[in-house]
Amino acid sequence: MSETNLADALFTPRSIALIGASDKPGANNSRTQVYLEKHGYQGTVYPVHPTRETVYGVKCYPSVTDIPDQVDHAFITTPPKTVPKIIRECGDANVPVATVFTSDFAEAGGDGVRLQEELIEAAKTAGVRLIGPNCMGVYNTDPPATIAPNTVLQLPTLNKGNLGVISHSGSLTGTFISRGQARGLGFSKIVSIGNESDVSVAEVGEILVDDPKTEAILLFLETIRSADAFAAMARRAYDAGKPIIVYKLGRSEAAQQFTASHTGAIAGTDAAVDAFFRHHGIIRVDLFETLFELPLLLLGRKPKPGKTVSVLSTTGGGGGMVVDSLGRQGIDAVGIPDAKARALLDQGAVFSNGPLIDLTFNGTNPKNTSLLLNELLAMPENDGVIMVVGSSAQFNPENAVKPFLDLADSEKPIGAFLVPTAEKSNQMLTNAGIAAFRTPEGCADAFRCCLSWQPPIPVPEAPSFDDDRMAALVDDLPAGTADEERARTVFGTLGVPQVAAATARNADAGLAIAESVGFPMVAKILSPDIAHKTEAGGVELNITDTDALANALAIIQERVASHNPSAELNGFLLQRMERGLAEVLLGYRVDSLVGPTVVLGAGGVLSEIYGDIAIRIAPVSVETAREMIEEVDGLAPIRGYRGMPKGDLDALADAIVAVSNLARLNGARITEAEINPLLVKPEGNGVVAVDGLIVAKA
Amino acid sequence: MSETNLADALFTPRSIALIGASDKPGANNSRTQVYLEKHGYQGTVYPVHPTRETVYGVKCYPSVTDIPDQVDHAFITTPPKTVPKIIRECGDANVPVATVFTSDFAEAGGDGVRLQEELIEAAKTAGVRLIGPNCMGVYNTDPPATIAPNTVLQLPTLNKGNLGVISHSGSLTGTFISRGQARGLGFSKIVSIGNESDVSVAEVGEILVDDPKTEAILLFLETIRSADAFAAMARRAYDAGKPIIVYKLGRSEAAQQFTASHTGAIAGTDAAVDAFFRHHGIIRVDLFETLFELPLLLLGRKPKPGKTVSVLSTTGGGGGMVVDSLGRQGIDAVGIPDAKARALLDQGAVFSNGPLIDLTFNGTNPKNTSLLLNELLAMPENDGVIMVVGSSAQFNPENAVKPFLDLADSEKPIGAFLVPTAEKSNQMLTNAGIAAFRTPEGCADAFRCCLSWQPPIPVPEAPSFDDDRMAALVDDLPAGTADEERARTVFGTLGVPQVAAATARNADAGLAIAESVGFPMVAKILSPDIAHKTEAGGVELNITDTDALANALAIIQERVASHNPSAELNGFLLQRMERGLAEVLLGYRVDSLVGPTVVLGAGGVLSEIYGDIAIRIAPVSVETAREMIEEVDGLAPIRGYRGMPKGDLDALADAIVAVSNLARLNGARITEAEINPLLVKPEGNGVVAVDGLIVAKA
Repeated sequence: MSETNLADALFTPRSIALIGASDKPGANNSRTQVYLEKHGYQGTVYPVHPTRETVYGVKCYPSVTDIPDQVDHAFITTPPKTVPKIIRECGDANVPVATVFTSDFAEAGGDGVRLQEELIEAAKTAGVRLIGPNCMGVYNTDPPATIAPNTVLQLPTLNKGNLGVISHSGSLTGTFISRGQARGLGFSKIVSIGNESDVSVAEVGEILVDDPKTEAILLFLETIRSADAFAAMARRAYDAGKPIIVYKLGRSEAAQQFTASHTGAIAGTDAAVDAFFRHHGIIRVDLFETLFELPLLLLGRKPKPGKTVSVLSTTGGGGGMVVDSLGRQGIDAVGIPDAKARALLDQGAVFSNGPLIDLTFNGTNPKNTSLLLNELLAMPENDGVIMVVGSSAQFNPENAVKPFLDLADSEKPIGAFLVPTAEKSNQMLTNAGIAAFRTPEGCADAFRCCLSWQPPIPVPEAPSFDDDRMAALVDDLPAGTADEERARTVFGTLGVPQVAAATARNADAGLAIAESVGFPMVAKILSPDIAHKTEAGGVELNITDTDALANALAIIQERVASHNPSAELNGFLLQRMERGLAEVLLGYRVDSLVGPTVVLGAGGVLSEIYGDIAIRIAPVSVETAREMIEEVDGLAPIRGYRGMPKGDLDALADAIVAVSNLARLNGARITEAEINPLLVKPEGNGVVAVDGLIVAKA
Repeated sequence: MSETNLADALFTPRSIALIGASDKPGANNSRTQVYLEKHGYQGTVYPVHPTRETVYGVKCYPSVTDIPDQVDHAFITTPPKTVPKIIRECGDANVPVATVFTSDFAEAGGDGVRLQEELIEAAKTAGVRLIGPNCMGVYNTDPPATIAPNTVLQLPTLNKGNLGVISHSGSLTGTFISRGQARGLGFSKIVSIGNESDVSVAEVGEILVDDPKTEAILLFLETIRSADAFAAMARRAYDAGKPIIVYKLGRSEAAQQFTASHTGAIAGTDAAVDAFFRHHGIIRVDLFETLFELPLLLLGRKPKPGKTVSVLSTTGGGGGMVVDSLGRQGIDAVGIPDAKARALLDQGAVFSNGPLIDLTFNGTNPKNTSLLLNELLAMPENDGVIMVVGSSAQFNPENAVKPFLDLADSEKPIGAFLVPTAEKSNQMLTNAGIAAFRTPEGCADAFRCCLSWQPPIPVPEAPSFDDDRMAALVDDLPAGTADEERARTVFGTLGVPQVAAATARNADAGLAIAESVGFPMVAKILSPDIAHKTEAGGVELNITDTDALANALAIIQERVASHNPSAELNGFLLQRMERGLAEVLLGYRVDSLVGPTVVLGAGGVLSEIYGDIAIRIAPVSVETAREMIEEVDGLAPIRGYRGMPKGDLDALADAIVAVSNLARLNGARITEAEINPLLVKPEGNGVVAVDGLIVAKA
């Protein structure tokens, strides 16, 4: 690679080669050159085409290698099969980075996948970094360099601004500009990352973290590639005070199948992705428009999780919609405490108090509004303030916006929902640094994002188990599903109490070891040929003493023999029969996008039916484990719901931490581990794993 | 009341008295007169004020009774306490309707409630109909009559159109106009109904149903008053082909407490309201903007419930957002069947097939788009069609809109999501009668509304039970909670199988009747002094024969005597001990807003924890009962989930129908009835009610 660094070559190239240049009207590759000039690119543009003399009157070269000058950035729009060769030529010409607009690579499947591999190989060998393929291009606003044929560049001007954007979708880079500028927002740098074959979202993100003109990073993601680098970038962004705001496709199963390579079983990938974002301090919006409405709520502020907002309104209906939408997001609208309200009214403030604080007709003036907004911002009872603005937002923007003008730097998040169509107020608020919302739902989504934003979670302390023994156990696992005994050993060594159990070659041996297991007891046949033990008559429950055990083992042997005469019988598994207040599912899964996760759900079919699980990036601390227990609705009974007896939640949290520590131990080898059920006993009586499963890869 | 009918007096008054008129700049009551003239009101305006000679140069009268002409409509802005007197004067002057802008009536509580009662009484006596109080006014666009001081009337023009609006929120009538007109929509008539003290939403709705200029009715509701009239109006609107589209506050519990008088226990009022809307063919939007985006999807179409949509797109990112948002609403995006797709490609169509049908760069032209849209509309595999439009929507509106121009009358719903900011295309589509969406979530919400829209549900057939006996049983219920025996009788007579049971005065009597109940059996103490039988030791389970029963009864007596020596003991309840595949909760509740409802939930605490219930307006047909069974997630196991044994769903459906029939029998007297648990046995083995509760009012 050339000595020009990637950031400069991408965003401030001194010269750009347009490979596949054209001036044919309507052709995709004819627009980039026009837009570069239109938006004020100050460097040199070199059209490249095998046969043309000039393009738009500019001298054209047959190949990038023919250009006499150093080229900092190549933009390639030639047919797919030509691209690897062109990249090799870029290498010969010492071009540090090439942005490949051309599509029909990996995203098309089949031959496209192979062509992309060839492309990557060519780029590596040639020392050329790649953006794309299948991308729209790269935009810098200051100094201007719009290396993209996107029609959005027909806009008369491109606003400078403090938002950096990376998008998997090329066309949406246009939408960012179109919708953003309509709201008065401006962007620093925008990258359409396409198939992300070489330069990744993480790598561009690192450049934006270092970019003094970028204050927040917006991502439109269809998937997550190189999760570790992504996570590291996100943590650096957090430390630099630059929030990362993500819209990620894949909330629905349909879209997961459509866009992602993987769908989870109970813990759908999307839940794991959510966990990943939270884990690394990244904010995920729910509504598309929140991408545009949220940044001003976060800029200059630190995460301060909360659950309450005060809503001040000039319109009952508009305010009611905000209160309702906030409620659906779990955020309570809080009025002014009575004593404080009386004092304010005595001082001449005009309002009607309640969950919605109504300015009333007489109180709708800038002075009174300003007074109340300042009081609400100072009030410890809320975590944020929303002003709902009625008609004045449309017909008297100056008055509507005035009370906000000094509040952009408030520590507490503040925003305005404009009830009518009010673009001018929207833009004025944006210019003043105040988040303005167009819909009550967008307002609530943004406040949810803001109030649930948290710093990246630190790596938890190392566990107390014997690392070497655990590592040996994991290394020793066969590929595929391990037998129950190995699973017991792994989980037991991690520190999860296992049900008392022992195996016996035959009935006599079983009777001899019965005391060590203890009654009541369950007996199961051991046979590699019998998958469904219960159906084969191979299980007896609730065995209360030695006589009953002798009887049970004889009956099992007889039933199994008649059910499957040729089965190889290896004896019996005797297990202490345990009871708990609740059964839970405790799992560990290496998600194909985001890596090791730990999952907690109510036992039985309920967690599946209701999707009622808590999932976190593994390993977790005991604090995080406690959060997970709180999060599973179906565990309400053992949390003391309606006076029901509490389960041993401390022991459950310890078990979650223990299982999550599989991630420390060459975790990637174990792709799945699950205790189901783990019985939770009454407070002080611990938990016990009854059945476990471990799947390892080769 | 005068002979002028209400509709004419409201919307086409020949003359309007502005009572409390003023020309003081900034005063609320100074604007109506200006706006009436500005927007072209052709009738006569009579300012009324006790002392002024003229207002805005127009002769002013001291009282409405001094006006020499017939006044069709009075608009009142005077202080609250003056209003009842003014209404009496309106009666003297034979004014048929008065719109009361003044607030501080019932909505303010306390004295306001009493003042509103006085107002209603005055209006009744005077024969004057009331709109409001606490309302913004009444707007007609054709012929123009804007009887409202709303600032939105500063807009240069007011669009005529086919949408009628009724709103509980006054300020939102301005928002309807502001947001609607920004999208190119127009309104026929708008009524701010305020406190709905006399003329109701239902009554204005009836006028809109009869209004030839109104083709759809939009409602912004904070509550529902006079549910029966509302329902009748909705059914007439449906028959007239005029969809009713509602945004109702109260999705969150906070807003329910804030706006509504009532919060339900398990079946929160909001779920009952949802059921009410569905029952009467009313469509409830989830997002505020859907109020504006949905009408064109419905106008001219009949309900045709469905679950699939085809999405055609020029942008992968924009299309992906729509597919994802649809998926979250339970709507699948479907591609073109393979054979059909091949045939289309052979004929020269250009697209890439899949759940998202991508036009590709080469296929993005009006001819190809039009071809594909028509094919998709004709395709039986989908229930609707969405086109996702990228940059062309912003920069080439004519081309973007052209393919839609002939499609507004398609039987199948069709709409467009415009990915960039594209107001011109939005308006052109609106003018062409095509629903245009600004956000992917709004698009999905509108298609959910459209595809779940259904005709009003017919009243189910009469049940087979003995009406007279049932009526007598209900009449005979004491006020408050009925005893278990009465509840058994009511439910049994309705047709729900009851667990075999009998009461016995003492142990000997219990032994004598044991055979008639059958073993295994449960025995419970009967005592008015013991509320918690289990805690008092008053219950024995799993009694398998007569000896065990004798023993159990003796033990119960002994334990209870020692637990509560002074308790009056009335003997024992013996119940057959039943087992089922599942326990369900089957309830009947008279909702305070919408009346009798029937509720089905999974038993235990789960339906409460997960809010997992199905609720319908009672009585229901067996088809509706089956829908309810499908709707409860927690009943998946007895529906055969993962091969689990099925429950007797036919018997369960019959039980739901039976309990819902309480609504036929002076249902309002019984405010609550609940069987919990109702045991569902394996297919063919029926259901059995184990415990029941009935609450009646005096």
